[in-house]
Amino acid sequence: MKDDQQRGLLSKDAFVERLTREGSTRYHDHHPFHKLMHSGNLTKIQLQQWVLNRYYYQTRIPIKDALIVSKSEDPNFRRTWLRRIQDQDGQHEGHGGLASWLELARGLGLDVEEVRSFRSVLPGVRLACDGYVQFVRDSSLLEAVASSLTELFAPTLMAQRLEAWTHHYPWVSSDALEYFQMRIARASLDSKQAVEFVVQHALTYQLQERCVQALIRKTEILWHLLDCLYMAYVEPGSGGKKTE
Amino acid sequence: MKDDQQRGLLSKDAFVERLTREGSTRYHDHHPFHKLMHSGNLTKIQLQQWVLNRYYYQTRIPIKDALIVSKSEDPNFRRTWLRRIQDQDGQHEGHGGLASWLELARGLGLDVEEVRSFRSVLPGVRLACDGYVQFVRDSSLLEAVASSLTELFAPTLMAQRLEAWTHHYPWVSSDALEYFQMRIARASLDSKQAVEFVVQHALTYQLQERCVQALIRKTEILWHLLDCLYMAYVEPGSGGKKTE
Repeated sequence: MKDDQQRGLLSKDAFVERLTREGSTRYHDHHPFHKLMHSGNLTKIQLQQWVLNRYYYQTRIPIKDALIVSKSEDPNFRRTWLRRIQDQDGQHEGHGGLASWLELARGLGLDVEEVRSFRSVLPGVRLACDGYVQFVRDSSLLEAVASSLTELFAPTLMAQRLEAWTHHYPWVSSDALEYFQMRIARASLDSKQAVEFVVQHALTYQLQERCVQALIRKTEILWHLLDCLYMAYVEPGSGGKKTE
Repeated sequence: MKDDQQRGLLSKDAFVERLTREGSTRYHDHHPFHKLMHSGNLTKIQLQQWVLNRYYYQTRIPIKDALIVSKSEDPNFRRTWLRRIQDQDGQHEGHGGLASWLELARGLGLDVEEVRSFRSVLPGVRLACDGYVQFVRDSSLLEAVASSLTELFAPTLMAQRLEAWTHHYPWVSSDALEYFQMRIARASLDSKQAVEFVVQHALTYQLQERCVQALIRKTEILWHLLDCLYMAYVEPGSGGKKTE
């Protein structure tokens, strides 16, 4: 810590490079469950369970984004960030990201009411997602924004996913994949704004370090979500060992 | 409390009537400072100080509304409530309620940067406004929404204010009064939605009672804001005795 106190501010490029490196090496695309998904090796039930469990994560997004809005004193920031809530909730009933995710669930043959009920969400998935909301609630605005930076890696992943699913799971109609398609452009815009914000506001090395730690914490949350799916539906009883 | 446990749910009409009665008798239009304002008996400095101090309250509105949005699991509710944040922050820089309030400050001859800085906000005003945000943060969604129901009385007050200010303080240009004008229609719509929500969700007498208490708590916050102004700028040293 003493060393940290004495360290000077990283340059913008070095800071963004550090965030990108620490985030990308821990991003959930490296998770065994995710690798099985993109290589076409998940069964229909495994894929369904990912969609069902991940829906709980999706529903936490507007909640954590509203918490982020509540932490800002700046109308310009709030106006910009509000769009994320609108992206998920839509401008009208049945529109927006959450509705698209339910279309995905329908496209995979899931009972949409079952998905919406959260009844079958794995306990660990629920804990991870609730933990993310709590982390955002307890964090500074800067750390909360930094934790959103997993979106830096989302556009590439969404593009790969569209290709992988179209190739490996052709029984899922392309209409059902609208969410992934939509996220390519949005995540790119969102992460650009979030990077600008953290670069502008992390004005000491210590604050830069807190941003990095917040992003790492977020990658752990996404990673753990897949741990739970792996343990429950790929190798029950593995205790996550295969995911190390 | 035991009596309360045994009491049956009030009918919708009786509940709304109770909210209206408990709220209206405690609403800040009865406060001596407010009576001085609407009867044309505030000096320019006293009026300026009201606008300056009340701006701090105004800036808390989008923050508490974002907290309310974060408490909801319902995209429809969030979509509707989000409009309140947009009403204050505007769709573009320089638009919206907060910008209109700064126009009001400018119209009263205040230094807008001084107002924005919060430097001259009275400590008690700051405590009251921060207390409101904290109350919303700690409350259930139902209580937080109920606390917004002072808006039931806002349209009438805004209409009276426009008339009173135009008559008594003609040196304030009518352009500067846009905020009050805008609130007549918006507060009417907002309170209608909030009443519908509490009626729909307060499904036991105990929950109805919590709604009433939340509204009373909110009236106390608005009242105390005027106590502080009265003590500082009307009768220094009165310790609020005149306001009882």
